Amino acid sequence: MTYCVGLYLKDGLVMLSDTRTNAGVDHISTFSKMHVFEVPGERMVTLMTAGNLAISQSVITLLQQGVELDGEHHTILTVPSLFQAAQLVGVAIRHVWKRDGGPLREQRVDFDVSILVGGQIRERQMRLFQVYSAGNFIEATPDTAFFQIGDHKYGKPILDRALTYETSIEDGVKLVLISMDSTVRSNLSVGLPLDLLVYRRDALRTEQRRRISEDDACFKQISEGWSTALREAFRALPHPQWP
Amino acid sequence: MTYCVGLYLKDGLVMLSDTRTNAGVDHISTFSKMHVFEVPGERMVTLMTAGNLAISQSVITLLQQGVELDGEHHTILTVPSLFQAAQLVGVAIRHVWKRDGGPLREQRVDFDVSILVGGQIRERQMRLFQVYSAGNFIEATPDTAFFQIGDHKYGKPILDRALTYETSIEDGVKLVLISMDSTVRSNLSVGLPLDLLVYRRDALRTEQRRRISEDDACFKQISEGWSTALREAFRALPHPQWP
Repeated sequence: MTYCVGLYLKDGLVMLSDTRTNAGVDHISTFSKMHVFEVPGERMVTLMTAGNLAISQSVITLLQQGVELDGEHHTILTVPSLFQAAQLVGVAIRHVWKRDGGPLREQRVDFDVSILVGGQIRERQMRLFQVYSAGNFIEATPDTAFFQIGDHKYGKPILDRALTYETSIEDGVKLVLISMDSTVRSNLSVGLPLDLLVYRRDALRTEQRRRISEDDACFKQISEGWSTALREAFRALPHPQWP
Repeated sequence: MTYCVGLYLKDGLVMLSDTRTNAGVDHISTFSKMHVFEVPGERMVTLMTAGNLAISQSVITLLQQGVELDGEHHTILTVPSLFQAAQLVGVAIRHVWKRDGGPLREQRVDFDVSILVGGQIRERQMRLFQVYSAGNFIEATPDTAFFQIGDHKYGKPILDRALTYETSIEDGVKLVLISMDSTVRSNLSVGLPLDLLVYRRDALRTEQRRRISEDDACFKQISEGWSTALREAFRALPHPQWP
């Protein structure tokens, strides 16, 4: 399984993914699920993928080689807008569907892929999209300031409670780390290391990109600090005293 | 959807279920998913059900009317042990499967039901079982002190962090209410009122049984207190400062 979360904030984007993939519990590997396409000063586009690894790797390869969009050959590094980047991802998914969909169905394997596409190109708006396995997509807005793909439920309550579009990037980083920590604790098949990316609106280059390993002191501090804080909060909460 | 959670603690059982059922977002109703079979001083058996309401209601009806188990006609009120109560639930599920499984499959409806069975009968051990839709079942142990059925992921992180077999009943009640609150906030199709039951080991009668409505002051206090505590804990946690 996978857990990826992308925040769409007033000040920028925060993207976090785990790196664990598994085909059964005895075949667990580390693969990056975060793919950054960056030309500093011109564009910063980040993709995070969930679902069948064979499908998502095929999609990424196609996006690097280029596919046809509206009669032109494009890669993520040539599309003129983030909307077209999301369209291109959809087109690439549909290519893979045409090639692999039938044989997968014959073996009863779901065609399962979802991709978050976030970034900014030149003077265009910063945007965040979620592309589905049918190649269609939705966009984050100030009302819905985060997207999650993969096993998203464990890490959703804290985002529901604490995240808004106005949340600062620094708080956003704390929040996605807590959200990931809750997921890692509850689901064995989501695991460290993590890939974190921070993008500040209009910068047109990544502000921070970091691989967070098991022994990362900052992540440990968040993880242990949050556990302690939760236990203390729980202890301090009065027992219900029904009349 | 549904969320039910049962704690198997050193001192007793804590069971909590929501009451919302839906067949699409425009057909939402309230049905109790908690069924208590009690003969004070002799037996206390509580069932909580998740899945297809037609299936679980059929199962409950069969358990009241009686089905054959090992050559004898039994209801939940006549089985001599909780293990046999779980077996009886499995047999009842298989009866419904025989009757409804085919027609449901023809309409592409999953045969989806899961049932928690907790309680104690006479001088036997207090036990908690989870029965699957195939009629097989597993039992809670001191190592795995809770079971959840329905949409369990949102409410699992707090249990993973804070619950052990040694947890007191009072803390257990607080915990299941927090776990339910996280689920209700993140999933529209899980909703109040809630049914709460507390059973103290060897009492052979329920200690507390309560319907918790939207305007229950104690639940509000837990829900709002927990939100406030989480936000404060989040604020107090230092921002990660990577070197």
